Amino acid sequence: MAYRAPVSDIMFMLNHVTGLEAGIKEGIYADLADGFARTILEEAGRYGDEVLAPINRTGDLQGTKLRDGVVTTADGWKRAYEQWVEAGWNGLSGPADHGGQQLPHLLHAACLDIWNGANMAFMLLPVLTTGAVEALEAHASEALKATYLAKMVSGEWSGTMNLTEPQAGSDLSQVRSKAEPAGDGSYRIKGQKIFITYGEHDLSGNIIHMVLARLPDAPAGTRGISLFLVPKFLVNADGSIGARNDVRCAGIEHKLGINASPTCTMVFGDAGGAIGWLVGEANRGINCMFTMMNNARLATALQGVGVAEAATQKAVEFARDRRQGKTATSGGKSAPIAEHPDVQRNLLHMRAMTQAARAICYLTAASHDRAARAADATARAQANERAALLTPIAKAFSSDIGVEVASIGIQVHGGMGFVEETGAAQFLRDARIVPIYEGTNGIQAMDLVQRKIILSGGQAVAREIADMRVTLEAVRASNAPGFGKMGPRLVEAVDALEQATHFMLANSASPDVVLAGATPYLRLFGLARGGVCLAAMALAAQASGDMAQAGRITLARFFAENLASAAHGLEISVTQGAGFIETASLALSA
Amino acid sequence: MAYRAPVSDIMFMLNHVTGLEAGIKEGIYADLADGFARTILEEAGRYGDEVLAPINRTGDLQGTKLRDGVVTTADGWKRAYEQWVEAGWNGLSGPADHGGQQLPHLLHAACLDIWNGANMAFMLLPVLTTGAVEALEAHASEALKATYLAKMVSGEWSGTMNLTEPQAGSDLSQVRSKAEPAGDGSYRIKGQKIFITYGEHDLSGNIIHMVLARLPDAPAGTRGISLFLVPKFLVNADGSIGARNDVRCAGIEHKLGINASPTCTMVFGDAGGAIGWLVGEANRGINCMFTMMNNARLATALQGVGVAEAATQKAVEFARDRRQGKTATSGGKSAPIAEHPDVQRNLLHMRAMTQAARAICYLTAASHDRAARAADATARAQANERAALLTPIAKAFSSDIGVEVASIGIQVHGGMGFVEETGAAQFLRDARIVPIYEGTNGIQAMDLVQRKIILSGGQAVAREIADMRVTLEAVRASNAPGFGKMGPRLVEAVDALEQATHFMLANSASPDVVLAGATPYLRLFGLARGGVCLAAMALAAQASGDMAQAGRITLARFFAENLASAAHGLEISVTQGAGFIETASLALSA
Repeated sequence: MAYRAPVSDIMFMLNHVTGLEAGIKEGIYADLADGFARTILEEAGRYGDEVLAPINRTGDLQGTKLRDGVVTTADGWKRAYEQWVEAGWNGLSGPADHGGQQLPHLLHAACLDIWNGANMAFMLLPVLTTGAVEALEAHASEALKATYLAKMVSGEWSGTMNLTEPQAGSDLSQVRSKAEPAGDGSYRIKGQKIFITYGEHDLSGNIIHMVLARLPDAPAGTRGISLFLVPKFLVNADGSIGARNDVRCAGIEHKLGINASPTCTMVFGDAGGAIGWLVGEANRGINCMFTMMNNARLATALQGVGVAEAATQKAVEFARDRRQGKTATSGGKSAPIAEHPDVQRNLLHMRAMTQAARAICYLTAASHDRAARAADATARAQANERAALLTPIAKAFSSDIGVEVASIGIQVHGGMGFVEETGAAQFLRDARIVPIYEGTNGIQAMDLVQRKIILSGGQAVAREIADMRVTLEAVRASNAPGFGKMGPRLVEAVDALEQATHFMLANSASPDVVLAGATPYLRLFGLARGGVCLAAMALAAQASGDMAQAGRITLARFFAENLASAAHGLEISVTQGAGFIETASLALSA
Repeated sequence: MAYRAPVSDIMFMLNHVTGLEAGIKEGIYADLADGFARTILEEAGRYGDEVLAPINRTGDLQGTKLRDGVVTTADGWKRAYEQWVEAGWNGLSGPADHGGQQLPHLLHAACLDIWNGANMAFMLLPVLTTGAVEALEAHASEALKATYLAKMVSGEWSGTMNLTEPQAGSDLSQVRSKAEPAGDGSYRIKGQKIFITYGEHDLSGNIIHMVLARLPDAPAGTRGISLFLVPKFLVNADGSIGARNDVRCAGIEHKLGINASPTCTMVFGDAGGAIGWLVGEANRGINCMFTMMNNARLATALQGVGVAEAATQKAVEFARDRRQGKTATSGGKSAPIAEHPDVQRNLLHMRAMTQAARAICYLTAASHDRAARAADATARAQANERAALLTPIAKAFSSDIGVEVASIGIQVHGGMGFVEETGAAQFLRDARIVPIYEGTNGIQAMDLVQRKIILSGGQAVAREIADMRVTLEAVRASNAPGFGKMGPRLVEAVDALEQATHFMLANSASPDVVLAGATPYLRLFGLARGGVCLAAMALAAQASGDMAQAGRITLARFFAENLASAAHGLEISVTQGAGFIETASLALSA
C-alpha cells in the first residue's frame, strides 16, 4: 500500500492544537487565510505521494555510489529533485528577500512531516540547505548573501553542515580543522570531516559547505571555532559556476538506513587548501551554528513523526487485510488481525504516539511563528522561550517514538515485517538515525534539564504546565462518557511532571542528580504534553458532534490510559532513581 | 572489541537464582557436581569466543547464496559447523539412548545464551535440530528413530520445522499442504512452505524436514493436521545417503537481519510428491509440535538474552574508550562517555535488562529440570506448571528487551552505531526477528493470560508471587544501605502484579478485556520476576562481603528504581486500560 499524506489529520491538529484558525483571525497567520493552508498541504501531499514515495524503496535498495569522487544517487532521484526545485518547494520558508515565500514555520513543519513520511532520505537534502540558508542569512556578509542565497533558497544549489570530525562527535570543542587567511579576504581550509550528509551528490548544481574550523592562534575549546562557507565550485563574479574547489568526498558510509542519502567523509584542502569565507565573527562559529539549531532540531523531530506516520499507515493497512485466528465477534471464521485486541493495542499505540509527537512539533513551530509575528513584545518573548523549551522535547520524544513505532510496525507484520521487500523494516532502519544526529537524544535531555527548564527562573515551564491544566479543566468539565479515565490519567501525568520539575529545579546545584534523571524527565514531559494535545483534539471532536471525528476520542483515551499512565514510574525514576551515579562504575566494570 | 562469554556472571546466577549448588546437594544436578558446570561453560565459552564470534560479521556481510537449488553459507561457516559436531556440542542435551549427553536444561540454556551472544544466526541450526530431535523422540516410530535420531543428535544431519505457508502465518488452522498415503507406509507430500530457517544449506550431510500437512479427508482446522518427516536425501537400509527427495528450495528471503541464516521457501512434491513418513498419530500434528514448543520458546528467548549481552559488552567497551565532554569529576578534561550520568543510565539499563531476562530464562530451564528430575511427584507437577507459566514470559520479555537493548547499544555509539562496520547495528537487525518467530510476542501474551495464569485455578501464579515475596522479605530484613529503594520498589512491582493477576482471573469470562491487557501484563510479570531475581543476586553479593560483587547491588538497585518502577503504570494499563476495544476500529479507520 502506498503512503498517503494525512492532510485531514494535520488540518484538524493545526486548528485544534496550534490554533491556526484563531491565528488567522488574530493576524499572525494572515498569509494562511482563505483555505490557503489546506491548499498548500494538499499540493505538498500530492508531491509527496506521487513523486517522493515511489522512489523511497528504490533509493533504499540502490543506495548511492561513489566513483572517482563523484557520488551518484539512485534512479529517479535527480528527476524528483528537479521537480522539487521547479515546483518552488525549496523556498517555502526561505527569506522573501532572496526569493523565498517566507511562509510560517507551522506550515513548513506540516509539509516536512508529510514529505518525511513519503521519503525521509530525500528530505535530508532540503533540510540541510534550509539550515545553511538560515546561518548565512543571520551571519554572512552582504557579498556572500548576494552570491549564494538566492540559488540556495531556490534549491538550485544545496547546503551542508560540516561539524563532526573523527575525534569530535558531539563534543565540538575537539574540532581540529584549520583555516588560514589568504590575505584577499578568503581563507584556506584544511581538515577532515565525517558523517557529512549529502556532502557530495549529483542532485544540485553546486554544494555550499558550512564548515567549522579554527583560525591560527584561536583559543582552545568551543570559543576558538569559526564558521566558513566553502563551495564545491567557486562562483564567478557573474554568478556562474567557476573552478572546482579543493574539497572532495573520500568515502561514503555503509549504514543501517537512509541508504539513499550519501553520508560522506569530506577532505578539505589536501591539494593546498580549500577556498572559503568567514561567516559571522571570528571564533563565534558555535553561536552561528546555534542560530539554526532550533529549526534544524525541529526539522529532525519531524523525521521521526513522518516515518512513524508512514509505518502506521502500512501496519494498519496490513492488519486490515491479513486474516489470522478468530475473535469473539468473527463468528468462527478467521478475522482480520486488526480486530484482535492485542493488535489493536499495537496499532493504537503507533497512531497515538505519532499524533502526540506531531502535536509537540507543531506547538514548537507555532511558537516560532508567534515569537516572530506576535504584536505584543511579551507574547513574543514568551513564545521564544516556549519554542526553546519545547525544541529538545520535540526532537528527542519524536525521534524515540519514530523508532518505537517503526519497530511495532514490523511486529504487526509478523514474519513479513522482517522481509525487506515489505518495506516495514526500512522504516526502522531509517528512523534509527534520528535519535542520534542533530544532537543525540541524551544531549537534548541535558539541554532540557540544564538550560530550558530554568528559563525565566522556571516560569517558562510553569506556563507550559498551566497551559496543560487549562485543557484538562475543559476535559473535566466536558466529562463525556467516551473519555473514560482520560481526564484523571492526564491530571496524574501533569502532576507527575510538575513534581519532577520541582525536583529538578530544587537540585540544580547537583548536576549529576539532574543529569541522571534527564532522559525519563524528557519522556515524562513528552507524554504529558502529547497526551494533553490529544485531549484537546478529543474535546474538539466531541464538540463537533461529527461521528467521523469520534476516533480522535478513542485515540486520546488510549494514549492517556495506556501510554501516559507511565508517568508515575517516570516521576519516581527522576526523583528517586539517581542513586546509581555513585556506584555505576562498579556495575559496568564486571 | 570481541565478545567474551560472561561465564562468571552466569555461574553467579546459576548458584544464586536457580540454586545450582543446592540442586547438586539435593541430587537433581548430580551430573553437574565437582565444578563440571563451570568446566562445560568455559569450554562452551571458548568455542563461542574463538569459533562462532569471529564469523558473525562475515556471515552478516556475505549472507547466503542460492544457485540451482543449492544454498551456500558464508566463508568459514562450514568449518565452524564441523568443529561444532566434532566437539560434541550438538548432543549436549540430546537423549542418551541416541548418543546424546542428556545434560540438564539449565546447563544447556546457559550454553545457548553464550553461543547466541557469539553468533545467533549460526545457532538457529542446532536449535532447530534439537526441536526436531525432541519431536521424533516423543512421537516417531522406533524405525524412524533408529534411522534418524543418532545422526541428528550428533549434528551430522540437521533438522527443520516446516509450519508456515503463505496464507497461514501464526494461524496453523489454515495449513493446506497435503500428504497422500503411498500404500507402503510412506506418504507423498505436496505443498509450499515459507520462512523455513535453514531449509536448505551446505553445513550438514542431510536435512530432516518436519512438515505439517493434511491427510486426505482430514478434518478442517488444526485437528486435521499431521506431522511428517521428509528427508532431503532418502536414507538407504544401511543408513547411508540415498536418492534426492522431491523437495527443493525455491527462494531465500532478503531479510533485515540474521542474514547468515538462509530463510527458505520450500517446495515439496512438484515432481510427483516428496516421500515422507507420519510422525505420531494422524491428525495430531499440532500436539506433536506442542511437545517441542516449550523448549523451542526457551531457546528463542535465549537468543534475545545472548544478543543483548553482546550488544551490552560492545557498548560498555565503546563508552569507556570514547572521550566526549566533561563531567563533574573529569577536572576540565574530556571524560570517557561511560562516566556521563545519562550514558550510565543507558549502559545500566542494557546490563540490568539483560540479566533480568537471563534470570527468567534460567528459572524456566531449571523448572524443566525439576519437572523431570525431582524425587517428589508434587514437586515435579508444580515445576512443570512453573515452566509452563514462565515460558511465554521468558520468550516475550527476553526478545523484547533484546530489541530494546540492541537499540540502546546503537545510541551509545552515536553516529558510529549507525555505521554497519561497527557491528552495533547488526545486533538490532538480528534481534528484531526474535519477538516475531516461534509464536509472536502477542501470542505469548495471550498464552500467558488465557492458559497459564489459570493453571491449577491460579495456584501456579500464586506460588510464583509467593516465591518472589520470600526474596523481598530477605531484602527488607537485610536493609543494606546500598540497596536504596530497591525493596520498596520491588514490593510495589509484585503488588502491582498481584493486583493485575486478580483482575485477569476475575475477568476470565470477558476474553477481550483479558486480551487487551495481555501485553502490559506480561511486561509487568517480567519486570517483577526479573527484578526479584536481580535482588536475590544483590543479597548474595552483600552476604559475600566481596567488593568484586558489589556491582550486582548497583545493578539490582538500578533495575528496581528505574525499570521496575514502571509497574504501577502497567497495572493501570491492565486493569483500567481496556476501554479501547469497543471503539478501536473508529480510531483505525481514519
